[in-house]
Amino acid sequence: MQTFSHNQLFQFCYNIFISIGCNNKDATTATNVLLSADLRGIDSHGIARLSGYVRLWEAKRINSTPSLKITHHTPSTAVVDADAALGLVAAPFAMQIAIDKARNVGTGWVCVNNSNHFGIAGYHAMMALENDMIGIAMTNASALVAPTFGKEKMLGTNPIAVAIPAGNQPPFVADFATTTAANGKLEILQRKNQDTPLGWVQDVDGNASTNANILKQDGALLPLGSDREHSSHKGYALGSIVDIFTGVLSGASFGPWAPPFPAYIPIPENMPGKGLGHFFGAMRIDAFQEASQFKNQMDKWIERFRNTTPINPDTKVLIPGDPEREMEVERMQNGIPVVDAVVKDLKSLAEKFAVSL
Amino acid sequence: MQTFSHNQLFQFCYNIFISIGCNNKDATTATNVLLSADLRGIDSHGIARLSGYVRLWEAKRINSTPSLKITHHTPSTAVVDADAALGLVAAPFAMQIAIDKARNVGTGWVCVNNSNHFGIAGYHAMMALENDMIGIAMTNASALVAPTFGKEKMLGTNPIAVAIPAGNQPPFVADFATTTAANGKLEILQRKNQDTPLGWVQDVDGNASTNANILKQDGALLPLGSDREHSSHKGYALGSIVDIFTGVLSGASFGPWAPPFPAYIPIPENMPGKGLGHFFGAMRIDAFQEASQFKNQMDKWIERFRNTTPINPDTKVLIPGDPEREMEVERMQNGIPVVDAVVKDLKSLAEKFAVSL
Repeated sequence: MQTFSHNQLFQFCYNIFISIGCNNKDATTATNVLLSADLRGIDSHGIARLSGYVRLWEAKRINSTPSLKITHHTPSTAVVDADAALGLVAAPFAMQIAIDKARNVGTGWVCVNNSNHFGIAGYHAMMALENDMIGIAMTNASALVAPTFGKEKMLGTNPIAVAIPAGNQPPFVADFATTTAANGKLEILQRKNQDTPLGWVQDVDGNASTNANILKQDGALLPLGSDREHSSHKGYALGSIVDIFTGVLSGASFGPWAPPFPAYIPIPENMPGKGLGHFFGAMRIDAFQEASQFKNQMDKWIERFRNTTPINPDTKVLIPGDPEREMEVERMQNGIPVVDAVVKDLKSLAEKFAVSL
Repeated sequence: MQTFSHNQLFQFCYNIFISIGCNNKDATTATNVLLSADLRGIDSHGIARLSGYVRLWEAKRINSTPSLKITHHTPSTAVVDADAALGLVAAPFAMQIAIDKARNVGTGWVCVNNSNHFGIAGYHAMMALENDMIGIAMTNASALVAPTFGKEKMLGTNPIAVAIPAGNQPPFVADFATTTAANGKLEILQRKNQDTPLGWVQDVDGNASTNANILKQDGALLPLGSDREHSSHKGYALGSIVDIFTGVLSGASFGPWAPPFPAYIPIPENMPGKGLGHFFGAMRIDAFQEASQFKNQMDKWIERFRNTTPINPDTKVLIPGDPEREMEVERMQNGIPVVDAVVKDLKSLAEKFAVSL
């Protein structure tokens, strides 16, 4: 484990994106998105993925000089062809269109096809906040999840993020995979050589498993709910809705045909659409009521929920976004810890592109 | 248990709504919505609730001759004050506005305040289908659910419905409470004198429980995910998003202050808004791509998921909406079974209003 300041990692990451051909603006945007994951404690979606993006660029699956185009639109909607851009660049581009449309007609809804992994969904949803809007972001991803009753991997972890502004209280920011456990949680257990709880994964035959390495043996993640008795069909439905909004509606690939993040895994044959897909929404608060009044009510909501009588007085009820916001303050001040395997990865990138870490 | 034809129950239910003062149109709409629950097998939300609506009307909490008003709007949004209408009437009214707005600017998003229980969310979302639109419906409800780490009931079962048109395949219709188990499932176990699985409910102190009657002893339902280890914080976040979209954004009451369905439970003091709240969305498919092309792709999505290799060859992977659609065909043909307690309820309504059953 080695700790880096945000500035150190920012400069390094920016330089790598410049090295693969991004312009200044795109390199800055991509770095902002990627490092917001590390700051917020979602280590699996931050700097740890940098070498993965580079490998996708090397495999010509990521275009570092894309022409993003709106291919279809109405006053409240648009579809963007991302031209194989970094998802880290395509997503803020599309979210900004959603925000602009919301400014004009109250809400904006933008689908993206031909994209790649877009980092943490929460970053994009949160772009709405400073505009007094509610922000929504979703993406599909390569299939790791078995639907209820199934043993094939059919859906990605397909996250949903919703960011809602408040007044004196910090905003409400939910950002979660539609599975019981995200893949990043398995990776932590793998490093510690520990088992998962029951209900996170199943083996190749669909039997319950506690093996944190089971995905490497053709096992699958389970939808939120874990099993039928605990309503995994709801998690499956939720992940499916994300896949359809981000994949089918955008014209991207979907379901088991979503392109994989690791560059060594071949792209599925006969993909039914282009690349990965995303879906973004922005709703202007004052398209529903005066923004200041809404924010007062959100403060009331947040304060009441924060003061729910806890089961254990030492473990208070949290508001979605609380842990990530506290982590961001802490890491901005004390630095970002990076595990050895990732440090090694970054050092080899530094060497390859003659960039100092 | 007694079985009634759809026609029998329709005529009866319609006559009761007329008896409490609804006009023909509202009585027809309310009956359609209510009985669609019975047809689709969601017995807890159908005719079983008729006497509850009547009691709310007797308590002057439901207005059978409301003036529904749009109080705020933009090209893609509107807020409706339902004037304490039956939610069964207010919801289709608002969903129709969302559909009309989508026709004009691509999407429509409508919040409702000052409403009541709206029946099954799926009915309203499905109104979009015949317009080649995706439909979304949500509602808040009186608090039965404890947030992760909490022992107070803070959220309703807050359902989400999403209906998506397909081509040759039947539509994708997800309609689910954001809890592990809906209250209706507890009622079934209560009648059979059976325990719940672990992970559905907790007792007054927040301990795990399997008592199907625990809500009557100040226990609570658990959010989808059941416990922290299985990501109940995601179910809690999802239920919260529904509460904020339907309650806070609409100007309705919210969280623990949502008004209760049973008329004998007093309305919470100092409600922060008016009545229950709903949220509806309609997205025109061709605001994103040609509708016929999308429907072909949805057929492909549905066929691929339906053919997922099953764990057990006798239990195939289902598409959201499959069981309800099959039930609808079956019950339209063979009648709707009604449990004795509800038959008794209907008979006393028949007597009270001199309406034949």
